[in-house]
Amino acid sequence: MSADFQESMLRSFVPVEPESHFPLQNLPYGVFRRRSGGEARVGTAIGDYVLDLSVLEEQGLFQAAGLGQDGIFARPSLNRFMSMGRPVWQAVRATLQHLLREDVPTLRDNASLRRRALVPMSEVEMLLPVEIGDYTDFYSSREHATNVGTMFRGKDNALQPNWLWLPVGYHGRSSSIVVSGTPVRRPRGQLMPPGATQPVYGPSRLLDFELEMGFFVGTGNPLGEPIPVQEAPEHIFGFMLVNDWSARDIQKWEYVPLGPFLGKNFATSISPWVVTLEALEPFRVPGPEQDPEPLAYLRIENRWAFDIQLEVYLKTPRLEEPFRLCRTNFRYMYWNVCQQLAHHTVNGCNTRTGDLMASGTISGPTPDSYGSMLELAWRGEKPIQLPDGETRSFLQDGDSVIMTGYAQGEGYRIGFGEVEGTILPAGN
Amino acid sequence: MSADFQESMLRSFVPVEPESHFPLQNLPYGVFRRRSGGEARVGTAIGDYVLDLSVLEEQGLFQAAGLGQDGIFARPSLNRFMSMGRPVWQAVRATLQHLLREDVPTLRDNASLRRRALVPMSEVEMLLPVEIGDYTDFYSSREHATNVGTMFRGKDNALQPNWLWLPVGYHGRSSSIVVSGTPVRRPRGQLMPPGATQPVYGPSRLLDFELEMGFFVGTGNPLGEPIPVQEAPEHIFGFMLVNDWSARDIQKWEYVPLGPFLGKNFATSISPWVVTLEALEPFRVPGPEQDPEPLAYLRIENRWAFDIQLEVYLKTPRLEEPFRLCRTNFRYMYWNVCQQLAHHTVNGCNTRTGDLMASGTISGPTPDSYGSMLELAWRGEKPIQLPDGETRSFLQDGDSVIMTGYAQGEGYRIGFGEVEGTILPAGN
Repeated sequence: MSADFQESMLRSFVPVEPESHFPLQNLPYGVFRRRSGGEARVGTAIGDYVLDLSVLEEQGLFQAAGLGQDGIFARPSLNRFMSMGRPVWQAVRATLQHLLREDVPTLRDNASLRRRALVPMSEVEMLLPVEIGDYTDFYSSREHATNVGTMFRGKDNALQPNWLWLPVGYHGRSSSIVVSGTPVRRPRGQLMPPGATQPVYGPSRLLDFELEMGFFVGTGNPLGEPIPVQEAPEHIFGFMLVNDWSARDIQKWEYVPLGPFLGKNFATSISPWVVTLEALEPFRVPGPEQDPEPLAYLRIENRWAFDIQLEVYLKTPRLEEPFRLCRTNFRYMYWNVCQQLAHHTVNGCNTRTGDLMASGTISGPTPDSYGSMLELAWRGEKPIQLPDGETRSFLQDGDSVIMTGYAQGEGYRIGFGEVEGTILPAGN
Repeated sequence: MSADFQESMLRSFVPVEPESHFPLQNLPYGVFRRRSGGEARVGTAIGDYVLDLSVLEEQGLFQAAGLGQDGIFARPSLNRFMSMGRPVWQAVRATLQHLLREDVPTLRDNASLRRRALVPMSEVEMLLPVEIGDYTDFYSSREHATNVGTMFRGKDNALQPNWLWLPVGYHGRSSSIVVSGTPVRRPRGQLMPPGATQPVYGPSRLLDFELEMGFFVGTGNPLGEPIPVQEAPEHIFGFMLVNDWSARDIQKWEYVPLGPFLGKNFATSISPWVVTLEALEPFRVPGPEQDPEPLAYLRIENRWAFDIQLEVYLKTPRLEEPFRLCRTNFRYMYWNVCQQLAHHTVNGCNTRTGDLMASGTISGPTPDSYGSMLELAWRGEKPIQLPDGETRSFLQDGDSVIMTGYAQGEGYRIGFGEVEGTILPAGN
């Protein structure tokens, strides 16, 4: 991977403010369509612009990176590119960092090419970047598992016996994963009201968000051949923000014994830009100490957490500006991504290009760092006070949840943009 | 749908024995490749032959069914065809029943076309028929849920409070769904041995099968728009046999609180032929009475069970012929397929062409009708006696499990062929 020092000096001829999420050091991948029309294409973000990679490819500018001109980027998903593996990802990243540098004239001084390839972000619509195969959601924040466990089983039985031994996870629903900006309809379903003797059908009353991060599998593993924990990084393409919307009342009634189902699968929102492992390399840090020591197949150098600051904002129809609900950090995760991937495949389970693995709710140690309404308002016991006098224990129709995050470098930020979703009233 | 009486009289010019699973009344869809080489194609089964639908399509023989010649069947999956909806499915079925009739000369008397289109089953390899999007596994047999609940929580608490109110289900793993004949490697994972104070890593010792049936979603529903229970049949393309392989020891240690994960996702086997709802129409029968009465969104005429006889056989390296482990019937399912689909989407969850929904283990009322080793050998307390003196409580390396099933008509059978899998020793 590239040296931090060298990268931090790089500047682009495209203007990039210091607080921008998209400097030359980031170069995340996404899929966009021009609002004026045309096909979906693969792009990267630089400052306030999207760089259309299909235009560069057409010009043969990725030949040095080993790509021909067969339209890897003239597609509505990243899957084909992701399937090509780390050497290609690195070569394309190096090419892009070169082409966008302030001292390289190829693109900078070619007005016609620039006009075709650089599109202002305001002129594009971002689409779901990946054709997602399987979606797995982990439960890897000790603080979150402890909070939820304390609420439902008391402090002494908060963590299940398996929790400290393995990264607990479950299969989620791929079909209902949507890109940031997609409205989310309040789900209906079966609820068992407190004190009732039989369930009722109706709109969820306890609608919540969950702040998570996720990663896409770039190259998978064949059925029957586990990914050793040391080799896990080779399979990880990049990261995004995830809002794992949750209907707590539906979930509570349905989830014993087979786990969450309709309480989760009505929608999961992700941010549109996929930030590569390469871009995050300078922000790889030690995670929490693991005690008991994990079994051998889960042992890896403790430097696979990421120092990524995360925030959640709430916008209500009445609030004048978004109100920050919490602030936390991805580095709090107890189980890291390498352990998640090694555990997921230890039984021979295969993964494929485009599989999504989410972290589970990211909660930190303090009450203002909890990653869900359930925890922030402590199951409704401590409603959140909003600046205009409103309160919230769960989400109301018309509320928008905005999650954002970035890693802070010296003079630059590796940002994730945001994932936003607004609650629509339940349907008929 | 076609009248039972009329269909039962139909005969093909292709010889079909009365016990054959594939008479003119069946016409299931599958994807095959000639062992001599060539591309994967969509076919139907008739007697001991596979009829290559891409050859018929090329000849324009589906024009009456509204299909052009753009290669709907010259593909390695049924997805495109499935996405076209019931009117097309019915028209293609009608065309096939016509072309294969003993009194229709088009195919019968065209030796060159017959040679190209009809391939002996022994000369083809069957492939996974569908590109599967999401895979959901239900838990809809009351007998199975009661048996498992009794073993783990005692007779009085066998069924969870939600079980009689909704079809409990969870998300499974799509990537590891394999077609019949694919060997299954014994999974490794974390186990908590009885009496131990910490888990160990090793091969599963309690490897099991689960006899299930599944259906493919033909046409899905948009996000946010539930499928009303009455409209569910329009979305169901066809059925297959499912072996939901289960590692009971891995499952037991991992599954609280988020449900089964590595105990299941190392492999799920399905039979290669998809039997259509049209073919099964004459075998649609009342299911078990439902008490309490389901909530309104789950109410439908009680005639959505299917009279399909199911059997599981065990072959061991020592046994001279496969031994029948159990015999049951799909009609025992408490929750029916329409209720499953309506429940799955009641919260707005979308489904897509190619989604697989499995029934959960199908157990009947008597001990010889249980659909898993766990139940048949009652958690190892009553090992199964095999004719050669061997016993089994769970599966051993080299064991093969064969599931088969059919609906018995007057003088014909609507069969599913079989789903077979052999256990390979755990890897390193």
